Amino acid sequence: MITSAANPRVKLVRKLESRRQREKLGLFACEGEDLVAAGLDAALEPVEALVDAERPALVERLSGAELVATDVMAGLSTLPHPARVVAVFRRADLPRHLEAPVGLALWRVSDPGNLGTLVRAADALGPAFVLLSAGCADPTGPKAVRASAGSIFRVSLGRFEDGEGIARVALVPRDGVPLTELELPERALFVLGAEREGLPEAVLGDADLVATIPQAGSAESLNVATAGAIALYEWRRRRS
Amino acid sequence: MITSAANPRVKLVRKLESRRQREKLGLFACEGEDLVAAGLDAALEPVEALVDAERPALVERLSGAELVATDVMAGLSTLPHPARVVAVFRRADLPRHLEAPVGLALWRVSDPGNLGTLVRAADALGPAFVLLSAGCADPTGPKAVRASAGSIFRVSLGRFEDGEGIARVALVPRDGVPLTELELPERALFVLGAEREGLPEAVLGDADLVATIPQAGSAESLNVATAGAIALYEWRRRRS
Repeated sequence: MITSAANPRVKLVRKLESRRQREKLGLFACEGEDLVAAGLDAALEPVEALVDAERPALVERLSGAELVATDVMAGLSTLPHPARVVAVFRRADLPRHLEAPVGLALWRVSDPGNLGTLVRAADALGPAFVLLSAGCADPTGPKAVRASAGSIFRVSLGRFEDGEGIARVALVPRDGVPLTELELPERALFVLGAEREGLPEAVLGDADLVATIPQAGSAESLNVATAGAIALYEWRRRRS
Repeated sequence: MITSAANPRVKLVRKLESRRQREKLGLFACEGEDLVAAGLDAALEPVEALVDAERPALVERLSGAELVATDVMAGLSTLPHPARVVAVFRRADLPRHLEAPVGLALWRVSDPGNLGTLVRAADALGPAFVLLSAGCADPTGPKAVRASAGSIFRVSLGRFEDGEGIARVALVPRDGVPLTELELPERALFVLGAEREGLPEAVLGDADLVATIPQAGSAESLNVATAGAIALYEWRRRRS
């Protein structure tokens, strides 16, 4: 049983709170039974698994799991209520096939909660893939993984420039073709920008279509995660 | 100019970080130019307004504003980058007329970010009113106000039991009538539950209709803020 915070496995998990370390090591950590189970369900094999010795969970599915003293477990958690299990997965094991007929391309969406919520929506309302530009939050960071509710293990990710040959539909807060009236192509990639800055001219110019979600007169623009989910809902509705 | 954190106005703002104090005093604080301006645009009169002496903002609209030393301003902020202006408003001045033909009724939605995002969606995709049960996050708490992006000043709030005579459409993760096929009544109140627990039997039994947003096979349920926004989008789409 691990009883010291200086244990190398415990230190690895802590290290993975840093985006730089996640990128350098190609790993990310996942806290909690639901998230770890989602990874196992997607046939990912954890590099490490740590289980609370007093409240073990998922041990029958985690053959190499190490038991950890409860106080050490509490010290490595990013949550107010420490999880019973933490597992480390390889980023390279996440899905990355972009054959789905619909996707989201996110331009500088830096809020990890919004990013994870969009990954979750891509899973539930697609299945859709998600392309990320430089400047986006790390989808494997703790907040994004949590907001994805496990969808991070099921949704294919790619680079913003990927998805060649798929029509790009830029979503803008106003003056685009109303989404409800838009003729949607057979395959569509909805392009969404960061909330404040929106989409730069170069990205807008690269779009095949520019659409707007119809909104009430007085209102401000929608949250980016809300807008992306509505676009996927509309796409799905037309296909069914 | 206020130079001490012991100043009663500064102490009032700090106090309002607590829900109990907000309820007791009937006040809430708002940080940042965009949010404070949204309050003023909605014709609310601030009880107090504090402005950073070195980076004053909105002073021409805040006649009674007090200048505050920058370090004191930093101390009263709940944000990583302290705002240039903080204003205190009365909770009783927020809108509370429930005539809109569509609304959301939220059952124990305790995450303030989700609650604020739903208020924002109600503004953009309605206008809709929002009813809150006991156990919901405080819509006037700092995170909810921020997630509302100023919509808190424009969206009418009420109690979960309000909205008498309006058809209640419960949204459930599975086995309801597909939302896309549902015959929507003239006036509709979409009932949404907390993510994990969902809606209890008593609330479900009270609903006139039970609907589900069509989802992909493998997926988990949608985030509650996403689900509420999609319901409003669908309602609006049918009306236009």
